[in-house]
Parts: sequence; C-alpha cells; structure tokens
Amino acid sequence: MSNHDVALVAAGQSKFGKRTEAGLRNLVFEATKELFLKAENISKDDIDATVIGVAGDEFNGQGAPAAVSIDEIGLVGKPTIRVESACATGTAAIKTAYGLVKSGLHDTVLVIGVEKMTAVTTGKATELMARAGDIRWEYPFGCTFPGFYALLATAHMEKYGTTREMLSSVAVKNHYYGARNPKAHLQKEVTLEQAMNSHPIAHPLNLYDCSLISDGAAAVVVTRADLAKKYTDTPVYIKGIGSGSDTMQIAQRETLTSLKGAKTAAQTAYKMAGIGPNAVDLAEVHDCFTIAEIIAYEDLGFAEPGQGGQLALDKQTYIGGKVAVNVDGGLKSKGHPLGATGVSQGAEIFRQLRGEVEKERQVPGAEIGLSHNVGQSGQFVNVIIYGR
Amino acid sequence: MSNHDVALVAAGQSKFGKRTEAGLRNLVFEATKELFLKAENISKDDIDATVIGVAGDEFNGQGAPAAVSIDEIGLVGKPTIRVESACATGTAAIKTAYGLVKSGLHDTVLVIGVEKMTAVTTGKATELMARAGDIRWEYPFGCTFPGFYALLATAHMEKYGTTREMLSSVAVKNHYYGARNPKAHLQKEVTLEQAMNSHPIAHPLNLYDCSLISDGAAAVVVTRADLAKKYTDTPVYIKGIGSGSDTMQIAQRETLTSLKGAKTAAQTAYKMAGIGPNAVDLAEVHDCFTIAEIIAYEDLGFAEPGQGGQLALDKQTYIGGKVAVNVDGGLKSKGHPLGATGVSQGAEIFRQLRGEVEKERQVPGAEIGLSHNVGQSGQFVNVIIYGR
Repeated sequence: MSNHDVALVAAGQSKFGKRTEAGLRNLVFEATKELFLKAENISKDDIDATVIGVAGDEFNGQGAPAAVSIDEIGLVGKPTIRVESACATGTAAIKTAYGLVKSGLHDTVLVIGVEKMTAVTTGKATELMARAGDIRWEYPFGCTFPGFYALLATAHMEKYGTTREMLSSVAVKNHYYGARNPKAHLQKEVTLEQAMNSHPIAHPLNLYDCSLISDGAAAVVVTRADLAKKYTDTPVYIKGIGSGSDTMQIAQRETLTSLKGAKTAAQTAYKMAGIGPNAVDLAEVHDCFTIAEIIAYEDLGFAEPGQGGQLALDKQTYIGGKVAVNVDGGLKSKGHPLGATGVSQGAEIFRQLRGEVEKERQVPGAEIGLSHNVGQSGQFVNVIIYGR
Repeated sequence: MSNHDVALVAAGQSKFGKRTEAGLRNLVFEATKELFLKAENISKDDIDATVIGVAGDEFNGQGAPAAVSIDEIGLVGKPTIRVESACATGTAAIKTAYGLVKSGLHDTVLVIGVEKMTAVTTGKATELMARAGDIRWEYPFGCTFPGFYALLATAHMEKYGTTREMLSSVAVKNHYYGARNPKAHLQKEVTLEQAMNSHPIAHPLNLYDCSLISDGAAAVVVTRADLAKKYTDTPVYIKGIGSGSDTMQIAQRETLTSLKGAKTAAQTAYKMAGIGPNAVDLAEVHDCFTIAEIIAYEDLGFAEPGQGGQLALDKQTYIGGKVAVNVDGGLKSKGHPLGATGVSQGAEIFRQLRGEVEKERQVPGAEIGLSHNVGQSGQFVNVIIYGR
C-alpha cells in the first residue's frame, strides 16, 4: 500500500462557543448533522465504526462519552472507541481511525471530537485542565496551563528577544480570521494596541494571548482511498502522520523554547508525506497561547529557531504570506473545545483544500494542509499532513 | 496481507488487588517490568509507540494518564495515545494497537491497561462507574452496575429458568482457579453453599455474584508478524477482532437476556479468524457478574440461548470440559481493574498458548484463545481471537 490510501470524504462542525443550550450530545448531533447534510453520497449506513475524541469526562459528568455519542446519532450497534490525548485528542482520534481503516478492520469510520466545557465555571475548567499536569509535583503547587506556557514565553523572550508585540501579532491575526469564520467562538477583531494592553493572566501572557474555554464538536469521515470516489469527487488524502511526546514534568525538559515532541512529529509526518515545510499551503497550529503558535512556526520548519516571532510580526502567516496559519481563527478566536480541536483542524483543511470556506479566508489554490495539535505542554503531539 | 499478520510477543501483569502502597504509575511500572524481564529479546528501544487503556481519570485524580505512564517507564519522546471504552478499555487498546501496527504507522507497540480504583471508597468507585450509565435517565435514579446486571439476571431466570445454583456455580469455578493464580486479587476458594448464601447486593445477585474493585495493570507487546520471530520463538497471533455496541439506556434494549453487541463482536471475530466456537480451547470472558459469564457462553456460541446456566452447572467450563473459561479467576476472583482487564485477558491467553501458566490451571495443548470484554452493560464489546 502507498502512504496515501486513506482519505477524508466528509466534514462537519458545530458552532463553537459558550453553548449554554447544548450538552455534549447536542454538540455531537450538530456537527454530524452538518456532515451528513453536506456530504453528497454518504448516509449513516455507510459508517462501519466511530472513534470519539473527548479529553475530559468531568466537564459534564457523563462517563463513557463514546456510547452516549453514538446513541444520540443513531449509530447504535456499530463499534466505537473513545480516544484521549489531552488537548491533542482530536488528532489522536483521526490517527486511530487511520489505523482502523488502513489495517482493514473497518472500511469507513466517522471521527467525532467533542468537548462540553462551560457546564463548569472557568475556574473549575482551568483546575480540571491543570490536573493533566503532574498531580504530584505540579498541580499541588498551583501550576496551570497559562503558567506553563508563560514559562515557555519567558524563556523564548530571554533566549531570542521575542517581544510583547510579536506575541500580540499572533492574536491580531487569529482574531482577524476568526471574525470571518461564522463557526468561531469570538467573531471580533482586536487591534494590536488592545491585544498588547489587555490584563495579565500569567506574565508575560495576557488575556489576548490565551485561547478560549469553549463548547463544540467537529466530525470527519475517514475511508479507504479506493472507496473515496464513491462518496465524493474531491477526497482529501492523509499523506503523513507523525507523533511525539515529552516529559511529564516541564521542569525536566531539555529546553523551554521548543517542543521536542512537535519536532519529532513534524519530521515523521514530512517524511511519510515526502514533502518539506515549504510545500505546506496552510497550517492549522495549536495556538493555545500566542507563544505556542510562534514555537509551532519553528518546530514545523516555517521559521528558523528564534525567528517565529518575526514571522508573525511580518504578517508572513496571513493569506498571501509564506504560509497561511490558523485562518479559521485558531484556538485563540475559533475556540478550543479540547477534544474537538484536532478534528476541527482536519475539517477546516478538508474544506480549504476543496475551496469551500468563506471567501475572505480561503487560501487560493491550497493543495497541502498541515494540522499540528499539542496535548498538555507537549506530552502529546500529532502532526497530520493532508493533500488533495 | 493475511488476517494473521499482527502478533503478541511479550506480556506482563502486576499483582491485582487492593494495592494500598501502589499508585497508577507504580502499577504500570510493575506490569511492564515483568514484561521486559520475561521477554527474551525485547528492550524498550524496540518499542515505537504506546497505547494506554485507562477507563476513568477520577479514581486517582491524574488527568492524561498516558503521559504519566510513559514518563514512569522511560518511553518519553515516543508517541502515546490513551483509549477508553468503559470496562472494555483494555481490548479497545489492543484493537487500536493492531490498527497502528498493521497500518504501518508503528512497527511495535506496547499496550498497557491500568486502573487504580481503591484510592477512593467502594461507594465512591461504584458511583463513578455508575456515571458510565446514562446521566440523564439512569444515574439520577440510582441505577448502578449491580442493578443493571440484576435486571439481566432476573430476565434470564424468568425466560430460561436459570437458577441461583447456576449463578453460584460460576463463582465457585472462578474462585477455584483464582486460588491457583498468584496474581489474583482474591486467592481463595468458595463452596457452592457459601456462594449461594452470601448477602444480597442487588437481588438476585449476592456478594459472590459480583466482581471486585481492584487496582492493577497488564501489558502486552504487539508487533508485525514478520518481526515477531526476532523477539520470540513462540509468538501468539491476533487472528480475529470484532466489536459491537448497544443502546445507552438499558430500557431501550430489544432483549435483556443477551448482549447484542457481544453477538455482533463474536460473529465478526469468528469470521475474520475463519473458525467457530468449537475451535476455542480457552476463553477469557467478562464475568463482571456471574450472570454476565452465563450470557457470554450463549453470545459466544459455547451454549444455545438459555443453556448457559446448565453449562456452568455441568462444570463444562472447567479445564477438561467443553471449553475452559476464566481459568485465571476471571473478573470475579482475579479482579477487575477496569482498564487492565482486557489487556490482562490477552496476557493470560498469551501465556496459556505458550504453556507458561501455573500447572494446575494450564489448559493442555491450548491453541486458540478468545477474549470477550464488555463495557458498561454492553455499550462496548470487543472479542479478540488469538492463536499460536
């Protein structure tokens, strides 16, 4: 078999946001409803199995969320598995589905990523996420994810001279595109001045450096390439998948200015796809914090180490620049329902490569899209490369 | 590729029990330590990725348990994914690894199943598990898993005349073998009289009809068949995998005397393996309650519908009978650390097919082993068939 014999043939996404009226089941239903309505020739009878990405049970109290999800959308009887890799859960679900399809266990798999986060307070959500840090040596001392990424930002600033303005440039871009994405959580632009002067969360990160706590779901259908044309004339192929990990405690890292797991993941994915970073037309990167997007530029090879901030400042990651990054708003503006994020990256790339997104944020002629999804502070990283 | 090109080449397991001194990390370490010590030619450098099966974060409060696990055993840097399918988590992890290996994404994958359950009280553990029932229509009304399985037992008794003595016969057998398994949680025999007369938990199920709340971990190494002989002279091949599911609410089932998902899973696995139930030498079945083992006999084709109880009464599932079932003690006596159970079933079959278990409970000349793993009350079922 070649590397390119698994394809995406359909995608859907719920509106991301504080979805007070919608529970986990409703979000799953909304994303898959859109998927089936948009898909030309796919019905639920074509689905052989599901993989459900959910990061945390405790946001909504329902255990075993995969069973609830398939019950809600009428796929009872068919196999399902839930996958979790903290904030990299969505791409872990796509990777798992790739394995199930290419191994021949299932022909066509529906992948759903979902998280219902706002049923608890923001403080409680932050605490639940912090428990994905080390509960012996980090969590008890008050470490939370804004704190972890503040350490990365400080280290990057100190080593490379990355500035407050560079960080905020990322926020400005992502809000610019989020304002043009009707599915985004926050559809509003911010000025550089606003972004630079908003109130501190964990120094040097301020409000506009942090992604959102959102509810949402996204879904894609993964199938064998030789079946793909049955479902659509324009399938999107999975060309490369790479993964990496890192130490549980951030204090044990060799460096704080790069994520080792992301570099490993990117190298593996590029090798499998037979391309390098220059071939990437658009990238969905894991901007849980603005510094994370800057580090992603470097780990993915879009910029030399230390040059990621300058790339942002030079607007080289807008459409028309070197590579279009997070032109759906990213985690920063589209939102970050943990389990949904990686699947939403895949759904966005699927639509971009088919020329189906809103005109103002469509990357013209995009042929290769890259998804970069990070769990915790780098303990889980998946990079997936998609191509037409 | 044939159906048999993925193999198990190593296995390990921690002692199951109330492991007051051991946390999740320690259990993972103990199981993988045994695996690497026993494996002839495998070191951690041979492991390309890990899949970690954990059912619930909340038993021990650590989120993202996969990252913690690989950190503890020195596999940092390599990819990891956590998988969850309630009590069928362990086999879901093996199935996921099968996909990752056979698809070519990873050559050799270490699968670990683990659960640390006794850090909370038995009441709290029961409540956490109950949240894998429907939190809208079951959990709020006091439904717990002993209650769900009591419904199945009552229905089976009413429809088929299954008796109290038949249920207890399962407990007597599983305790008999558990007493001969040094890794079992409860290593003690019980008499039929004791089993029949113990105190009620959820009528008609009494104490000896219920499996245990245990801490434990198990691990297996899954690799490509063409690499297997590099690691051991006696690999055990995965010959068939089947999965099924069922409605979220038990009230919506077509029947309470059989698990639809288990029948689907068994049919799929038998078909893939090219065998029928008569070819099975030993089975590891999901006896979370005694009635579940009786229903498993029927769903797996070891007995006709309604005849499972008689099969137990006739001692046909002891070694030397029609098929040896749960001769490691099963969930009833070996214990049931949720995420570990399905992996432990695989580890037990691996050892049985290689003739490596304690003499008194070794199935002579076993060539085919079947693992039957049920999540919730049938919402997730995986059946895996292993062969020499």
